[in-house]
Amino acid sequence: MTPGLQPIIPVILSGGTGTRLWPVSREAHPKPFMLMPDGQSLLQKTYLRAQQTSGADRSITVTNRDYFFSSRDTLQQSVSDTSGCVFLLEKNGRNTAAAITMAALYAAEHMGGPSLLLVLPSDHLVGQVEAFAEAVQQAAVLATQKRLVTFGIQPSRPETGFGYIQTGEPLHPGYTVSRFVEKPDLATATAYVQSGEYLWNAGMFCFEVDTFLHEMGLHAPEVLSACQACYAAMRGQTGGSGQGLEIPDALYAQVPSISIDHALMENSDQVAVIPADIGWSDIGSWTAVRDLTPGDADNNRSNEDSIFIDSQNTYIHADQRLVATVGTRNLIIVDTPDALLVSDADSVQDVRQVVSLLKQKQHPAYQLHQTVARPWGTYTVLGEGARYKLKRIEVLPGASLSLQMHHHRNEHWIVVSGVAEVTNGENVFRLASNESTYIPAEHKHRLHNPGPDPLVMIEVQSGSYLGEDDIVRFEDIYGRTN
Amino acid sequence: MTPGLQPIIPVILSGGTGTRLWPVSREAHPKPFMLMPDGQSLLQKTYLRAQQTSGADRSITVTNRDYFFSSRDTLQQSVSDTSGCVFLLEKNGRNTAAAITMAALYAAEHMGGPSLLLVLPSDHLVGQVEAFAEAVQQAAVLATQKRLVTFGIQPSRPETGFGYIQTGEPLHPGYTVSRFVEKPDLATATAYVQSGEYLWNAGMFCFEVDTFLHEMGLHAPEVLSACQACYAAMRGQTGGSGQGLEIPDALYAQVPSISIDHALMENSDQVAVIPADIGWSDIGSWTAVRDLTPGDADNNRSNEDSIFIDSQNTYIHADQRLVATVGTRNLIIVDTPDALLVSDADSVQDVRQVVSLLKQKQHPAYQLHQTVARPWGTYTVLGEGARYKLKRIEVLPGASLSLQMHHHRNEHWIVVSGVAEVTNGENVFRLASNESTYIPAEHKHRLHNPGPDPLVMIEVQSGSYLGEDDIVRFEDIYGRTN
Repeated sequence: MTPGLQPIIPVILSGGTGTRLWPVSREAHPKPFMLMPDGQSLLQKTYLRAQQTSGADRSITVTNRDYFFSSRDTLQQSVSDTSGCVFLLEKNGRNTAAAITMAALYAAEHMGGPSLLLVLPSDHLVGQVEAFAEAVQQAAVLATQKRLVTFGIQPSRPETGFGYIQTGEPLHPGYTVSRFVEKPDLATATAYVQSGEYLWNAGMFCFEVDTFLHEMGLHAPEVLSACQACYAAMRGQTGGSGQGLEIPDALYAQVPSISIDHALMENSDQVAVIPADIGWSDIGSWTAVRDLTPGDADNNRSNEDSIFIDSQNTYIHADQRLVATVGTRNLIIVDTPDALLVSDADSVQDVRQVVSLLKQKQHPAYQLHQTVARPWGTYTVLGEGARYKLKRIEVLPGASLSLQMHHHRNEHWIVVSGVAEVTNGENVFRLASNESTYIPAEHKHRLHNPGPDPLVMIEVQSGSYLGEDDIVRFEDIYGRTN
Repeated sequence: MTPGLQPIIPVILSGGTGTRLWPVSREAHPKPFMLMPDGQSLLQKTYLRAQQTSGADRSITVTNRDYFFSSRDTLQQSVSDTSGCVFLLEKNGRNTAAAITMAALYAAEHMGGPSLLLVLPSDHLVGQVEAFAEAVQQAAVLATQKRLVTFGIQPSRPETGFGYIQTGEPLHPGYTVSRFVEKPDLATATAYVQSGEYLWNAGMFCFEVDTFLHEMGLHAPEVLSACQACYAAMRGQTGGSGQGLEIPDALYAQVPSISIDHALMENSDQVAVIPADIGWSDIGSWTAVRDLTPGDADNNRSNEDSIFIDSQNTYIHADQRLVATVGTRNLIIVDTPDALLVSDADSVQDVRQVVSLLKQKQHPAYQLHQTVARPWGTYTVLGEGARYKLKRIEVLPGASLSLQMHHHRNEHWIVVSGVAEVTNGENVFRLASNESTYIPAEHKHRLHNPGPDPLVMIEVQSGSYLGEDDIVRFEDIYGRTN
């Protein structure tokens, strides 16, 4: 951190589901959790980038409450000390103005003294982290001068899916902003790119907490006051140490749903922009993901051993299965254990129509993966058929499933690795690897991992009814009753 | 059967692997076993058609010994009394002249009195079984007159993948044959189709046993005598009742490998052809399979619930997973549990290149499916990971696995349905559904289904080494020692 500047608190906005990246991105496993070719998720990269840039182990993440545990796992993988990190949990999102205002109110009260917020979307990629850190330092200079600073990306193509920022007078560093423009049509976008005056609006911001709240009071007082009402109702909750603070949903519903651009940036005369050449991508579609992997001589790309016969410009995203293409051109193939996408590369924007249709049909593939994250670990359905269902269950060290009971299904548990502490009816006992137990229907049971390593177990369910809704929970340390 | 005609004995030739139909057709599950949209395999359809046409429950199937048990299962599903059915088992095939000659030698000795052979490939489709039966009756009339009768299909397109038959003088019924022609180039094929004189050679034949052997003696004496030597060496084996007779491989290797067309049909002056309008397809590629299902308004076809967004002429063959296409044109998508094919519809002939490559790489997906047929039933690998492997095991009523032992792996068996008789070390006991047992490494064990219904069991293997080669077989009723 440059001496004389205020400390920087990253605010991570972890919102949208990324429906154009189905079937990898799903409602219960949205875009921020997607793994990039190097094995890190977009959210993890955001945490690492934020820490490296701000130099501090503190952050405020605003996300949906359904993503709290997974987000916290990701944070813990990225940051060694999470005591200065907090999660503000939305039940129903109210757009970026509300999310950032809630973060600013929390920072003003709990994060001591004047400080700068660095607002970062959790689902973008920044290839050049050094350049990013430098842009943030420039933004911090302007922010300390009471500016509301945006970051502008030099356009590489006349993209019609982004907003644009027209630069104004030079500042030192950066520029004033002449205007923000909504997503333009192709002719307008082409003119923008040619003019050299327009930058892409990357949705990243830097400003002082106090300046931000002051400007919100001037330009969006109804957002500010509704957020203040929410925040007042949250005062009883204690934050910190990677804990989650629930935003009261009924009060939050009163906050106008408006973007920070519309609410503030387009109206304030304090706005500035820092041009940022940082290897940015919004990873907005499968072609953006494809472009992260270099093509072979025929411009084919694959992240696994695949077979290309007379194929060109074909991208294969597959982890587990063999994929072979014959005579294909300009194709995107995305394979997951339970769903497959085959799309023309020029039609990838329409992938969200698949998700709409699945949602309409109530098909689980819009929402869940075969591997489902839970507060205590994960479960993966490995197979099901008449009268049986198989799951691989992985329980984190120290974690417990709820004390539960099933009316219809019997369960056989076989420990593959690690140690299990099993409650089976009246008995509590331990199982090591290769050991097993049988839990008949109507028996109360609980699974706990008392060891330092993950517990991996195979569960074989048998019986005539095996629906996930056949569960009665008696006690749950994560507060779930169903 | 028309009065006065000799009895007809179907000879089913079950040869090639159908590499152009990968990934559904594989070395261990070749094209004759592929299911058509109505759920019947091509081989089953062939047995049903043969029985309906010949009116008798007898047949001779010439196939590879690796396909014996699956072929016999198929026969038993198709024919109620298999006592008149025999399998001649090749270790290494020697082309159609050898296969048909072996069948003729067997029929001459064992199938009593003058009779006609009806030679049928096992991997073609005949849509109009009534018309086929009628064509066979016409062929039988000519065959009884000592003719070697072929069936000619009216060409619907200038196909360059088939041989052609030029018709000669009219007979009553049918025609003499002017000549047989090898696969022509496109210009020649087009001229053939326009002339109206040429028919496709469908590889089906009808002739008297004695006439065939007599003509073979005239035109291919070295094939006949080498087959007679093989046959003499097989005399000790007893056939009938759906049993398999192994053809001695070392002697069979001495038989010239030549097609029946080259060896006999192109040379004999006894040849005749019956034009047959029978809805024939050789199911030679995925476009032929595709064409069995009617297209929707956009000419898309799917045999499962799939999602088409802005797609045309797209065929999806998928049983278990959701498949979505966006903006695709003229595409063939074939999904199986462990391998996926995406091919341009105009490139489907090149699918065999995928198989060649897989074979070269020693990838199991050219050979095995996830579900593997065994004499006693099937097993399916449902999942594997560090220290575990899961199988679904289905044991046919009355069947037994070998008495075996593993040095490294432990097995947990959980019965899902049916009854298991388990040998576990020194103990023999029964398990009903929901019951389980544990077989530690180094314990001798055996699984038997004593009941009238299939036994379905989940096997959870655990341990540090789980390769299929960790098996010691002590007794096996199917004669396998490894």
